[in-house]
Amino acid sequence: MTLPDPDGGTTTTIAAIADEVGVSVATVSKVLNGRADVAPETRARVEESLERHRYRRRGRRKPAGTGQIDLVFHEFDSAWAMEIIRGVEAVTEPAGIDVILSQLGGKHHPPQHWLDAVLARRPLGVLFVLCSPTTAQQEQLRRQDIPFVVVDTDSATTASVPTVGSNNWNGGLLATRHLLELGHRRIAIISGPEDVLCSRARLAGFRAAHEEAGLPVDPDLVRYGTFYIDAGFTHGMALLDRADRPTAVFAGSDMQALGVLRAARQLGIDVPSGLSVIGYDNIEVAAWTDPPLTTIDQPLRDMAGTAAHMVLDLARGQSPRTTRIDLVTELVVRESTAPPAS
Amino acid sequence: MTLPDPDGGTTTTIAAIADEVGVSVATVSKVLNGRADVAPETRARVEESLERHRYRRRGRRKPAGTGQIDLVFHEFDSAWAMEIIRGVEAVTEPAGIDVILSQLGGKHHPPQHWLDAVLARRPLGVLFVLCSPTTAQQEQLRRQDIPFVVVDTDSATTASVPTVGSNNWNGGLLATRHLLELGHRRIAIISGPEDVLCSRARLAGFRAAHEEAGLPVDPDLVRYGTFYIDAGFTHGMALLDRADRPTAVFAGSDMQALGVLRAARQLGIDVPSGLSVIGYDNIEVAAWTDPPLTTIDQPLRDMAGTAAHMVLDLARGQSPRTTRIDLVTELVVRESTAPPAS
Repeated sequence: MTLPDPDGGTTTTIAAIADEVGVSVATVSKVLNGRADVAPETRARVEESLERHRYRRRGRRKPAGTGQIDLVFHEFDSAWAMEIIRGVEAVTEPAGIDVILSQLGGKHHPPQHWLDAVLARRPLGVLFVLCSPTTAQQEQLRRQDIPFVVVDTDSATTASVPTVGSNNWNGGLLATRHLLELGHRRIAIISGPEDVLCSRARLAGFRAAHEEAGLPVDPDLVRYGTFYIDAGFTHGMALLDRADRPTAVFAGSDMQALGVLRAARQLGIDVPSGLSVIGYDNIEVAAWTDPPLTTIDQPLRDMAGTAAHMVLDLARGQSPRTTRIDLVTELVVRESTAPPAS
Repeated sequence: MTLPDPDGGTTTTIAAIADEVGVSVATVSKVLNGRADVAPETRARVEESLERHRYRRRGRRKPAGTGQIDLVFHEFDSAWAMEIIRGVEAVTEPAGIDVILSQLGGKHHPPQHWLDAVLARRPLGVLFVLCSPTTAQQEQLRRQDIPFVVVDTDSATTASVPTVGSNNWNGGLLATRHLLELGHRRIAIISGPEDVLCSRARLAGFRAAHEEAGLPVDPDLVRYGTFYIDAGFTHGMALLDRADRPTAVFAGSDMQALGVLRAARQLGIDVPSGLSVIGYDNIEVAAWTDPPLTTIDQPLRDMAGTAAHMVLDLARGQSPRTTRIDLVTELVVRESTAPPAS
């Protein structure tokens, strides 16, 4: 039951797997289909055998989820997630593809019951946003011939995972260079969470700009928080309510920057004459804050659209020319940044 | 083939319909399943016969879309739509129900090809947000035993359509009373689009508050626009850049109010000492604007959650006690409203 493969490998059948593990073909099939009614120990043995034989489903059957892709978020925040949804929908709607939406309540990897439901449903593909499947889950998806693409990266993704991101290091560099060019020498950064790769990349860009300028980074001015408004407010208050306060703050998101603007108002510090604030993302509201926010444009809709095209190409059996794409970030100068008070 | 029904009506079979129209049973079945491969003229005749006989599918077969509901928006705006998504997801996620997301690009009724896809896919139910099925489409959904609920109402919905909204008239009344109690006598309203029922209801509440106070409404101060920031800015500029400008503006949404705040800044008018601004919705950003926005809290997540529960109840064959619900709106006083300058 183990036959030579045109690629020089071997083609392992479900029957061969069943035979090896000592279970029925139906049981192997249940494991492949993400069905819950298999004993965990049996499932583990079947999984192990499937993996050792690099089992792949041949000749895709028409799945139940034809015409659907899954779009799963780490969590729903407001404006950011909606930009991603719009970018995906602009690609799927004309193609007649339905989008199934879910979120992981802040987790970076899906729980197994979520993945099992996807395996059972067999969508054309899965888009993971700010989250990713574990290595074992990646293998399960591949085995079922369900392609997936990760939008934005966290440290868990490896070179074998198709990803669409934006150049976060470059974004951090551009924002910091802008502030340095205006003459700022004490610049704070409120980064995103420390365990998120994009935060670390932006911080590295922040450091690189300081190195270019021959300036040290004051560790007291480097802070980590969530991407939400209240984190910006809390860190903003801590940074600004002191004698040696920074003359500029680089926030991890536009929402965070809104919180920093509020902290400055509360402390009676004028933006930009007394403090420069720069955001990140360029969501719609950024153009309408008081003052309008200088920010780094992260092309969220394009990122999402590119990822959607990629997963549909993969579903059609086409190999994209590249599966690791970073879109370019750009500085958008508005009114929240200015030279420091001399 | 036409049998007496326990309710005293009749039970019409597909075969009877086919016989009457003079087509095959397969053709009637195709029409019922929303399949495209039926000539328009034939489809119309079958539809007409189905409707005349009040045909209903008996004993639901297990449909392809078990465990899925459709959530369809009039269009995606940013924060508002995300609140609705969150409210739906909080109900569907624990229930193991998948949400299929789509939007109509600003249309108030779905195009037929969208409905045909839903009929073919057979979800457990459909949630329409700021849009609704046409009367014919309602009949098609009922015939397929696919329940639907409309979130927020436009003028097209009738008493037979389950809806969850909020009390817009009351919201308009509360906002206007608040401004009148502060001493304002020249109050402008930037309503939503004139053809949207919720806009008309809020405007009616605005008028009712004026009547209570024995004050006339100046027709020059009543304006209609979309719910977006730029509409608030445009109307704000038109209202404020004149000698007899209003001392207060009641905006149709928090996003619109952001545009009004910008117009005031551009004209050098301080909020709230020179102008009071009140928003609508109470989205997250409303608490973080400068100044923080007084607004009407529209319980968007609760509305969406209530609608999701309702459609799932209907899908289980349970009749909700009531299918026309308006949730209560509340005034949230922050810092953008104050007595007028004397």
